[in-house]
Amino acid sequence: MSAAQRRDRLRATAAERGLDAVLVTNLLNVRYLTGFTGSNGVLLVRTEGDDVLGTDGRYTTQARAQAPDLELLIDRATVAGVAREAVRRGVGTLGYESHDVTVDGLAALEDVLADAAAGGTVPALSSIHRAVEAQRAIKDDTEVEALRRACAIADQALAELAAEGALRPGRTELQVGRELDARMLALGAEAPSFETIVATGANSAIPHHRPDSTVLEQGNFLKIDFGATVDGYHSDMTRTLVLGAAADWQREIYELVAASQAAGRAALAVGADVVAVDAAARDVIADAGHGEHFSHGLGHGVGLEIHEAPGIGPLGAGTLAAGMAVTVEPGVYLPGHGGVRIEDTLVVTADGPELLTLTSKELLVL
Amino acid sequence: MSAAQRRDRLRATAAERGLDAVLVTNLLNVRYLTGFTGSNGVLLVRTEGDDVLGTDGRYTTQARAQAPDLELLIDRATVAGVAREAVRRGVGTLGYESHDVTVDGLAALEDVLADAAAGGTVPALSSIHRAVEAQRAIKDDTEVEALRRACAIADQALAELAAEGALRPGRTELQVGRELDARMLALGAEAPSFETIVATGANSAIPHHRPDSTVLEQGNFLKIDFGATVDGYHSDMTRTLVLGAAADWQREIYELVAASQAAGRAALAVGADVVAVDAAARDVIADAGHGEHFSHGLGHGVGLEIHEAPGIGPLGAGTLAAGMAVTVEPGVYLPGHGGVRIEDTLVVTADGPELLTLTSKELLVL
Repeated sequence: MSAAQRRDRLRATAAERGLDAVLVTNLLNVRYLTGFTGSNGVLLVRTEGDDVLGTDGRYTTQARAQAPDLELLIDRATVAGVAREAVRRGVGTLGYESHDVTVDGLAALEDVLADAAAGGTVPALSSIHRAVEAQRAIKDDTEVEALRRACAIADQALAELAAEGALRPGRTELQVGRELDARMLALGAEAPSFETIVATGANSAIPHHRPDSTVLEQGNFLKIDFGATVDGYHSDMTRTLVLGAAADWQREIYELVAASQAAGRAALAVGADVVAVDAAARDVIADAGHGEHFSHGLGHGVGLEIHEAPGIGPLGAGTLAAGMAVTVEPGVYLPGHGGVRIEDTLVVTADGPELLTLTSKELLVL
Repeated sequence: MSAAQRRDRLRATAAERGLDAVLVTNLLNVRYLTGFTGSNGVLLVRTEGDDVLGTDGRYTTQARAQAPDLELLIDRATVAGVAREAVRRGVGTLGYESHDVTVDGLAALEDVLADAAAGGTVPALSSIHRAVEAQRAIKDDTEVEALRRACAIADQALAELAAEGALRPGRTELQVGRELDARMLALGAEAPSFETIVATGANSAIPHHRPDSTVLEQGNFLKIDFGATVDGYHSDMTRTLVLGAAADWQREIYELVAASQAAGRAALAVGADVVAVDAAARDVIADAGHGEHFSHGLGHGVGLEIHEAPGIGPLGAGTLAAGMAVTVEPGVYLPGHGGVRIEDTLVVTADGPELLTLTSKELLVL
């Protein structure tokens, strides 16, 4: 789907809600709706008439190249500039993103609109809430393709490191993390999806351990949670390996998490309630007596953000729809001892989930 | 200065403003006031009584280790949990960060407070605006030391690359950028300060060019804008080199930018108006007829953010104070041709600016 088609969808939403225009300030939403990737962008989508993309002088060339079909407004005070433009074009009701605009930002926006109206009618502001995020939750083909490439890079990077013996005792978590990052970049990623987690031994029991100089040792778990970014889209995958022979307790919790993760994946159906999806995986772990050792939600949407809608957890709300890209990532963490998490990125389809991260989930003993 | 001392300063500000407590939601402000570096943290600073740090279950261990002197509250809905705690402890007037809390966030906070008051008195909310950022603008010794180390790593990384001949014709911008990043990590940086800018030839005329596969060529400018992060503090430096012999036009704009940058540095005095500091450097370029080719502000504060207070530019406001860490980075960009920027990170002191980025600013011809 083109950026123009995405704007048309938002235009339809705006019209339904009786708005003359929408002021999009969330930078990822601007990117999604325009293709512009600069660090400052504000978009005015008008129900009738041309849309306007605002940025500042640093990005004139880039904005023209990335969004050639859009009228461009260059203004250092970009939100104010675009808001004035809305007034100038007779916008009477203006939608805005109340989840993105701060309390101070709203006050400043109201001042600008009142000033620009110069005694005339001041546009009425009305939140569109997460209308653009709701669009973004359903990935189109272009987006799924970017996610597929991002997942393939992560798969390949890990496979290469394992094949080269880079995941061996004696190396540090930091070394492994940086090599994985460098490999993903060499394979064409723009960046790692987030700060790569490499956690070995007791550190593997910390869900979000930051890699440090801990040395990999025989008989320990090695948990790696990482991803690649391609065209702004994030992959997310976790694998847990064992260095040397696996002890019984390691094999036991590994198999438990793997069974839970399979149950979670199997529950990813169009129309499934996100709380039920979480429960499908969580019940497997709880039934084995490890409920208290699975301390986070089952998964989350991925896309232009590493965490986006839908949230899949006990506190989530809503149902899955075709085109949603999500993670399934249960874990069992035994404090001071070790932990396992297994995570995939998948796309929900009418024919069942499509797995994008293809690395084997058999317990890998290196 | 310890985190507890920083909280005491905020406590004094809160007391002056008649507040019983402050709810700090900006994550960097939480880090500054507690030492906690997790990705979810909310702090309650009480005028009288103990402070409370809120986070979620992922960070229990880390928060205890990084902020051992603080009472810890674990709650997935962290802002709500800490807000309820404020009500429970009888807070009548609660400060909050209106530049950080979104419009939706404020509405949710009001709901939580009303619910928690359960028919009793609902705390009155009052913005503290950027009170913590105002503290952060003046760096204490610990912070200056972190900045000094961050700058030293950037200096050394660039020196090593130059000495090894890594900045030679035939290599690409992306290769140079990634090597510089890897070198900074190897030297102990946590991360690059931002996406390293490497821009050669006509790309050097783009102020914020993103490195691509453009090949370095003899006779071209090579502009590198980069920095290292240490303990969360960012260094920021730009150097522009010439590959092979420098042409007259290159030497001319280089010397012009160098003179402008020296004038800007010399203007960094305690009490100086930021607009005047900008003008001191800008006038040098404007007098040479290149005013239109210097399209951005002169500099910005650096610290836990790569861009923070004070802004030093034509649209800035305020004066410099001892302990402020800032950049001075004029540039002249000739579209389609080439550009030069020279940037240092410095600390304002009563004895004049202390230069933290020590790489030579003589035109380096490689």
